Amino acid sequence: MVKLHDPQARLKALDRIFKPRSVAVIGASSTPGKIGYAIVENLKNGGYQGKIYPVNPKAEEILGFRCYQGLRDIEGEIDVVMVAIPAAVVPKIIPDAGAKGVAGLIIISSGFAEIGEHELQQQVTELAEAHNVRIMGPNIYGYYYTPMNLCATFCTPYTERGGVALVSQSGGVGMAILGFSRSRGMGVSAIVGLGNKSDIDEDDLLEFFGADPNTKVIAIHMEDIKDGPGFLETAQRVSKKKPIVILKAGRTAEGARAAASHTGALAGADDVYDAAFRQSGVIRADTLEELLDWAWSLQTLPDPKGENSIIITGAGGLGVLLTDACVQHGVKLMSMPPDLDEEFKKLIPPFGASGNPIDITGGEPPETYKNAILLGLRDPRVHSLILGYWHTIITPPLVFADLVSDALDEAKKEGIVKPVVAALAGDIEVEEATSRLRKRGVVAYPYAGEKAVAALGVKSRVWRNSHSTA
Amino acid sequence: MVKLHDPQARLKALDRIFKPRSVAVIGASSTPGKIGYAIVENLKNGGYQGKIYPVNPKAEEILGFRCYQGLRDIEGEIDVVMVAIPAAVVPKIIPDAGAKGVAGLIIISSGFAEIGEHELQQQVTELAEAHNVRIMGPNIYGYYYTPMNLCATFCTPYTERGGVALVSQSGGVGMAILGFSRSRGMGVSAIVGLGNKSDIDEDDLLEFFGADPNTKVIAIHMEDIKDGPGFLETAQRVSKKKPIVILKAGRTAEGARAAASHTGALAGADDVYDAAFRQSGVIRADTLEELLDWAWSLQTLPDPKGENSIIITGAGGLGVLLTDACVQHGVKLMSMPPDLDEEFKKLIPPFGASGNPIDITGGEPPETYKNAILLGLRDPRVHSLILGYWHTIITPPLVFADLVSDALDEAKKEGIVKPVVAALAGDIEVEEATSRLRKRGVVAYPYAGEKAVAALGVKSRVWRNSHSTA
Repeated sequence: MVKLHDPQARLKALDRIFKPRSVAVIGASSTPGKIGYAIVENLKNGGYQGKIYPVNPKAEEILGFRCYQGLRDIEGEIDVVMVAIPAAVVPKIIPDAGAKGVAGLIIISSGFAEIGEHELQQQVTELAEAHNVRIMGPNIYGYYYTPMNLCATFCTPYTERGGVALVSQSGGVGMAILGFSRSRGMGVSAIVGLGNKSDIDEDDLLEFFGADPNTKVIAIHMEDIKDGPGFLETAQRVSKKKPIVILKAGRTAEGARAAASHTGALAGADDVYDAAFRQSGVIRADTLEELLDWAWSLQTLPDPKGENSIIITGAGGLGVLLTDACVQHGVKLMSMPPDLDEEFKKLIPPFGASGNPIDITGGEPPETYKNAILLGLRDPRVHSLILGYWHTIITPPLVFADLVSDALDEAKKEGIVKPVVAALAGDIEVEEATSRLRKRGVVAYPYAGEKAVAALGVKSRVWRNSHSTA
Repeated sequence: MVKLHDPQARLKALDRIFKPRSVAVIGASSTPGKIGYAIVENLKNGGYQGKIYPVNPKAEEILGFRCYQGLRDIEGEIDVVMVAIPAAVVPKIIPDAGAKGVAGLIIISSGFAEIGEHELQQQVTELAEAHNVRIMGPNIYGYYYTPMNLCATFCTPYTERGGVALVSQSGGVGMAILGFSRSRGMGVSAIVGLGNKSDIDEDDLLEFFGADPNTKVIAIHMEDIKDGPGFLETAQRVSKKKPIVILKAGRTAEGARAAASHTGALAGADDVYDAAFRQSGVIRADTLEELLDWAWSLQTLPDPKGENSIIITGAGGLGVLLTDACVQHGVKLMSMPPDLDEEFKKLIPPFGASGNPIDITGGEPPETYKNAILLGLRDPRVHSLILGYWHTIITPPLVFADLVSDALDEAKKEGIVKPVVAALAGDIEVEEATSRLRKRGVVAYPYAGEKAVAALGVKSRVWRNSHSTA
């Protein structure tokens, strides 16, 4: 589609959409289980403090809110209109929305391009443009914006605030985002469904989230890019300020065919996407698991001041696996300065391995781990730490989690904050230790720890991107 | 080392080691927290029914077992001797072990090649060979063999029986194996630590587990191969009967250096390993996570009768991601026969997508999922199913888990058993649904589902390997 909106008007409209003073719900219902009921319920239960206007000619009141016959009957201004009525009648409401100066129509309804109704979608898009109303959707689950307690969706509410903005083209992927976020305790600024993206697309959202002080990391699932050059220009600019991670679905020919019949997406040649992402500083995730893991870990880890990593491990075998993972994920293992090597040697048994990895060996008490970690944290030549933990009776999992926390606290008091990731090899108690470490800002994984290194690799790439001169 | 043992004698010795009628523990201790105490405790608490002989000249009795001065004081035959005494005194006990006709010494003690004591290790190895006693280790956590309730280790007991034999060179990795197994509820036949593998190595274990009716899948973590040609010959033979998955640590130059200082392993050029594994039908895992996930999924999934897979999904977006994953993991998406396509079309809404993936769309009741799954299970042209689930109010997660179970049960009554994997996109309830499905033999993952497809890809490779004429 042609972008008629100028950048300032575009940002202003998006600002009204994400921070609405009022939300109308067309197709609001008083019947639990209906989409039009769930939206009003989520707006209410999510704690949204703006005005809520259910629109339904047959109802007086829904969930305690006065119900309106149509948009024109609403006295106050309307920033956002949620649309949950059959596709065929969507065009009818647009002139009213235009007349009321609505900023955005969030079209939940399906029945557009995704089932071949391209003309209807085109009609709605053009009408909205003519009336200066932006469209999110159609065919979406809605959106969340936690700084406003806004759960404008028929899915379950999610209110855990944080700095990750997540965008998905698919409703199924949106539900996976929601579940993962809740399970991982990931604070988000926004979760947004784009669906057929007849108007608002990733480009717009990059612009908004790029400027949004509540957003630190942007993670996007997409099946296609509608406006290639626009996207690239925006991504290149925004990725200098905030990390952008993208999962491009339909990367194989077979997947692209499936995408075409899903959202009508024209997936395009994958190598073109690959080059475009690389050029614009976008981190490409290969799987949904990576997209979600990296969104979480990018937010969890503090920014490093450089690329030098050290591995401190209680298990030599884990040290080997973590070293392999460093090479595979582009994490730079610091060449150990002789003076620092000597310091580490003082802490570990004579049969432990110095150099990098630093193998403190498995039989060591908590003090050895803690002193080695503090040494790494305090040395300014070390920029990040990778911990390999081996479950023993002498240093049980929760003791390890707590000693890591203590070391981080001590360093923090000295003004030292560095990314720390951890791989925990042990019996099931390491799961609780992992949770405890995650709450303390450590990107930890139980059992296999390669993902911890992958997370640090992504953090390093972001560092390089923000420090490149290009 | 030179292999003097002939194949039959080798298998016989291993049989005595894994199915001992008696286990002596040299260095047994009556002090909780000591390794020599933990071993006796685990043998007892694990439920081992053979004779347990603690050896400690200073104790009368340990954990209710009569204690002996030395091996020669034990009246009965001894199959296995656990060794938990300082490295330097290990040589002294070998003649006694030889005199008693012991099959294997399990040398827990460290202080050998891994700290540069190559001569001591060589001495022990040669002595044992001269006395016709096999050595497992040194520098290991011990081993488990669940068919005998044998927890011959100082780690925590593990008694969940199943068909996976897991081998690790590192103690840290061994603890990760243990924890993962317990967390996943993975039934194992054995968990074995090989450490410095001065004698018994992967080659021996492949021979034993290949012949062992209790073992269905063999998963190995290794840092090197001591006897390349022997390993290849054995792996090629055994992989025709049972899947072998291997994680070769130290695959990068940096990792190899770390391995050298860990177990003294000479890691060797990675492409040589790669070619060797491929030629011998070994499935190579890139990460510990893959090794563990695949060990579990290979056991969980029934054997397919061919390679034709179909994707049945409630979320189009998930269908796209699963399709990409199929291509990436070598899963063959069946070209949908027109008659079967017609049958699927009858089940799904007109705007759903037929073909493959079959997109039944998100608003469908449990019956649609179930009927589509049953159609796939019943059609003999379909060999495996990939399910994409989208959390909705109409078909909640646990309802989905149960309908899948029901469909599998109905098919089973008709004599139909096929591998089914599932990706569950939804809120946190999908975690319980995932557990339920796993118990029913479905390889399911919550949130991101690419790993479900990867698991099926591995199963397909095993099928191809066992059906290749090479």
